[in-house]
This record gives sequence, structure tokens and C-alpha cells, in this order.
Amino acid sequence: MATGKSQVFTVGVDFGGTNLRVAAYTPDCGILHSILLPTRLQAGPDAVVDDMCLAVQQLLDHFSPAHSLAGIGVGSPGPLELPAGRLHHPPNLPGWDGYHLLAEMEKRLRRPVAIEGDANVAVLAEYALGLGKELGIDSLCMLTLGTGVGNGIILDGKLWHGATGMGGEAGHMTIDPDGPICGCGSNGCLEVCASATAVANAAEHMIAEGNAHGLARLKNGLVPLTALDVANAARRGDPDAQYIYSETGRALGVGLAGLVNILNLPLYVVGGGVAESWDLLKPALFEELERRSYVYALTAPGRPAASGMPGGGTRVMPAKLGPDAGLLGACILPLYQAKAASTNSILLPLGRE
Amino acid sequence: MATGKSQVFTVGVDFGGTNLRVAAYTPDCGILHSILLPTRLQAGPDAVVDDMCLAVQQLLDHFSPAHSLAGIGVGSPGPLELPAGRLHHPPNLPGWDGYHLLAEMEKRLRRPVAIEGDANVAVLAEYALGLGKELGIDSLCMLTLGTGVGNGIILDGKLWHGATGMGGEAGHMTIDPDGPICGCGSNGCLEVCASATAVANAAEHMIAEGNAHGLARLKNGLVPLTALDVANAARRGDPDAQYIYSETGRALGVGLAGLVNILNLPLYVVGGGVAESWDLLKPALFEELERRSYVYALTAPGRPAASGMPGGGTRVMPAKLGPDAGLLGACILPLYQAKAASTNSILLPLGRE
Repeated sequence: MATGKSQVFTVGVDFGGTNLRVAAYTPDCGILHSILLPTRLQAGPDAVVDDMCLAVQQLLDHFSPAHSLAGIGVGSPGPLELPAGRLHHPPNLPGWDGYHLLAEMEKRLRRPVAIEGDANVAVLAEYALGLGKELGIDSLCMLTLGTGVGNGIILDGKLWHGATGMGGEAGHMTIDPDGPICGCGSNGCLEVCASATAVANAAEHMIAEGNAHGLARLKNGLVPLTALDVANAARRGDPDAQYIYSETGRALGVGLAGLVNILNLPLYVVGGGVAESWDLLKPALFEELERRSYVYALTAPGRPAASGMPGGGTRVMPAKLGPDAGLLGACILPLYQAKAASTNSILLPLGRE
Repeated sequence: MATGKSQVFTVGVDFGGTNLRVAAYTPDCGILHSILLPTRLQAGPDAVVDDMCLAVQQLLDHFSPAHSLAGIGVGSPGPLELPAGRLHHPPNLPGWDGYHLLAEMEKRLRRPVAIEGDANVAVLAEYALGLGKELGIDSLCMLTLGTGVGNGIILDGKLWHGATGMGGEAGHMTIDPDGPICGCGSNGCLEVCASATAVANAAEHMIAEGNAHGLARLKNGLVPLTALDVANAARRGDPDAQYIYSETGRALGVGLAGLVNILNLPLYVVGGGVAESWDLLKPALFEELERRSYVYALTAPGRPAASGMPGGGTRVMPAKLGPDAGLLGACILPLYQAKAASTNSILLPLGRE
């Protein structure tokens, strides 16, 4: 007889536009094993979901003899309608409009699946395992600066879904009404001003205009530059690369100022690849934030209205968990949902009880 | 012996930069009596609070023989630190920085006072007595377009205060990073693009530049034009006045698109004097909103993700209660706070139980 299953485990899926990451996780040991696959977007939604579910099944088969499954969690690109689990015109997944991701996964896996937008699982991880845990904060807002700009919001210990699961799309708040066109159909969104794509595009644009000789030499006519290439150039003193990061920090500051003014939370976390260049973003970001948010100016640590705030004042910080936030968040999502279902009160983060 | 006090009453104070309105209210009859006084800003904070409390006392003296007092509520200009009840650099109340409004009122009245920002009491009134009640909606966001632009947010039946009571300052989200200077120290805020002051300033600016002959004739060199004057001119066909309202609607649409993308609520209410020109704002407002918020485009009534939303989809509507929202909200505030203190669950609006 099967006895003595040592502890619960979950399987988490970080569904990205480039890669799929699938991991088995336990609350005590963290990630036990993870699988990395390319996202075969050209093969269509069903093939991608097949790949995803095959990897999940491998981990289920491998770990369920010894552990007891507590659930499967998925972080998906948005916009994702909840609770339906259906995608609507996801800008980075052409051909997926109207796709019932949740139903397709549950059909293949013959088990319930917990699903959230990718920025929602990332903020859940920062809340339960990262900065939220460290600072003892139950309300926070996270921006993830990657291919696009994701956003997740936790209010009083609960993911803020809004009426249809589409809350937390601050990546598409307008920063510059005359700014570049965005995949969402608008222009000047935070996403086209502060994503990794935006940083790389700004560099390519300057090179094309013949105004950035250092970046042009770096590129050397070959592959497109990445946000990381531009960051490295900025750190080596390239003024055009520094300008690009300064403008990116400025756009972020404008967006964060709006979020601070609207929500007045104690913590704003900036994650995703671009946040790894926090040193380059920081000066212009805080300059805009101070000037454009009097709520921030009054509540930053040490200011007149900061006393008594959890965390000691309004904090704006780079993410603690780095690129694993999305995968970790997907892994803990089933545990969070089980907890949310069993209580109506404020949810303490997992591991903070 | 005093027996048979027929029912509870409250006293509400609408503390505006121009006028003080103080009213006695019962849940059954609404406003029983109201007092209108000028706000003597030149005489300083203590004199204004003396005036306010004298009027409150008059109503207490008059109605308490027959009714039982349930509390005193105040809607104050912001930013107001809560629960301290202290003002911080209120842009429309020079000389009030750091003023302990709550403590000063309680000292004079020798009773507890319930205090909130003016937009918070307005959204409370729309929630409990206006559109929220009519549509059966428990989460809404209100913008009040007056001298400034106020903002109040109710999430799941509770006023969203944020960490220090300064949540709901969407009037200072940036709409145009190169826009006009705002009293808050930033520039291009929603407040300088869509308040009554902004409408009037836009007209004066066009006249000063010699570009608006119709408006110049209307003004006739005498008093400054008001937002209402400009609205009337627009309705009579003046193209410059129409342009001003169209740009105001556009700015509102940009701001509302951000709020819809961030919060995904079922209801956004636009109140204050400028909202009375809804017909003039509407075309450009909805054009921007559709284009800048894919959450709106997907969830407006009749759209793919609107089904099952309370109210039938994301609604953006002019306020129902008109200029009395602030006063009514101040009157019901003590009843709301008593209710909030007695329950941890979602609050049903007063009168909706």
C-alpha cells in the first residue's frame, strides 16, 4: 500500500511568449525540478498547450509517488478573462484570441488547474516569498518590465482581479499621449515606453537616425540589440545608452506616480529583465515620482505622513525574486487559491502565519 | 421627560474652497435643513472651522430635541491624512498645511466627528444613494470635476483609503507630461486638463492669444469666463468653445482609460460642475476610452467579456446626484462608518439591505 507521502507538492507553469517553464515545487524545498521548453507559437495554441501539459504530466508522474499533489498553477500572458480562463486578443500571442486556456489544460490533464495572468503570479510570489514577506506588507503593486509591461496588484492580502480578471493592466496606462503605437491599439502606453522591447527599439531607432555611433558600432550591422546590450553600453559610459535608460526611468516614474496617487500602497515592486538595470533607471524614476506624486512626496520613508505605514513609508523597489518570480508564483498559486477559498478574512502570505 | 425621539439624524458638512454647506439629514427624509456660508479663507483656518462648527451646533440644537444624533460627518478638501484627519499642503487651501482639522472640530464640538476627503464622501453618496444603488454595483470610481479634480474609489463596498488615507488622487495622474503646471507641483495632471478651472483657463488662454473671437465677445473684457459660460457658447455653436470641451473630454478619456486598465471596475462616475456638460464631453471621451483601454473595449456593455458583470458591463456615466453628492455623502458618512465598524464583511450600501 502507498503510505508515507512525505509532503505536498505543486506543479507550476510559467507560460511565456518565448519559453515555457514548468516546475515541481514544495513549500519546504522550493523548486524540486524544472523543465524549459521553447514556446512553439508557429505551431498554434493546441500544440503549445500539448507541450505544456506533457511537461506537467512528466512532473506529476515523477513526483506523485513520493509526494501528494496540492494543485497545478499557471501564469499566462493576458488579457485573461477570469474565472473563465479565456484569452482575449493577447498582444503577444497572435492567433490566441478567444482561446479557452483553462478548459484546454483541464481537458488534457483531467485535473483542476489554477490560472492567473503572468503579472498576477509574479506579484503573488513577491508578496508571499519576496519583498512583501520581508517588509511585512499586505498591499502591493508590481510592474514587470519584459517583452511587455505586466502589472499585478494585491490589496489587503488578495489579488485584485477587478470585475472580469482584467484589473492590473497598468502596462497600458498612457504615459505620453503622443508616444509610439502599442500592440494594444493605443499609443504612448507604459509598455511602449519602459519594456525591454521599448529599450531595444529606442536604440535601433537612434541608430537608424544616425545619431548613436557607439550603439551602432556595438550592433555592427548584425543582430538586433537587446535591452541588456544597451544597459551594458550605458554602464561603459555610452551617452546614448544612458539617455535611453534615463528616459525609460522617467516613463516608469510617470506611471508609478499615477499608481501611487491612485492607490496609496506601501510597496511598488519593479521586476522583469529591465529592472535588473535599476541603477540606470533610478535617478530619473525617483525625480519624476517625487515631482508627479505628492502622495509619494508626503509618504516616502522619513516624510511627514510616512509614520505608522507598514514598511516605514511608500517603498518603490526592484523585485527580490528576479526572473523566477513568475515560475514561483505559478507554483504557489494553487496553495494560495486553496487558502483564499477557505477564508474570508485577510490572507496572510504563505509562510507568514 | 424627553421621550419618543422619532428617528436618528446626522449633520453633514461639505467644506468647499468657496462655500461651506452644513445640513441635518435623516435616512427617511433626506436633508431636513441646510445652511450655506462663504468659506472665509482670508480669515484663516481657525475662523473657518469656527464658522463650520457654529453652523453644526445650530443644527444640533434645533434637531436634537426631536431626533437622536447618529453622528457628524465632514467632507474636506485633500490631501487628508487618515485616520489622523490632518491636511497636508492642500493645493486649494493655502495656509492649511499640517492643520489638524479633525481634532479642531472635535475640540469645538466636544463630540466625535467622521471625516473623509471630499471626493470620498461624494463617491459614498453615489454608491449608497445614486448610481451604485440603481445598478446594484459595489465597486466604483468617481471623478469630480470642479475647481480641482477629486477622486474617490469604493472596492467591494469599502472606501479605498490606501495606507494613509491618500488613495484616490487620480486627479493628479499625468495625462500629458508636457501639459500645464498644476498646483500639486507636477504638470499635465488630469486636474489641469479637465477641471472647471481648466476649461475656464483654456478659454482665457485662447482669448489672450487672439484666437477665439466668439469667446472674446462673450467675455466682453469684463469678468473671467466660467466653465458654464464656455459650455453655453459650445451649445450655441461656438467652434472654440466646442474644441475646449472636446479636448477636456479627450483628457478625461485618457485618465479613465488608465483607471479602467488598472482597476477593471464595473462603474466609473463623473461628477462635479463640468460633468453637467456630459453631452459636450462624451464624443471625445468615449473615443479615447475605446482606443486607450482594451479592458474597456472588451467589457463595455454588449462586448465579449461583459456578460456576467454587475451592471451589464463597464459603465462610464455622469453622476446621478449632481451638486448635492458631497453634502449627502458627508451626511451619510457617520452611518457608513458605524456600519463599517460593526462588520468585517462586504458592506451593503445604506438602504440596499
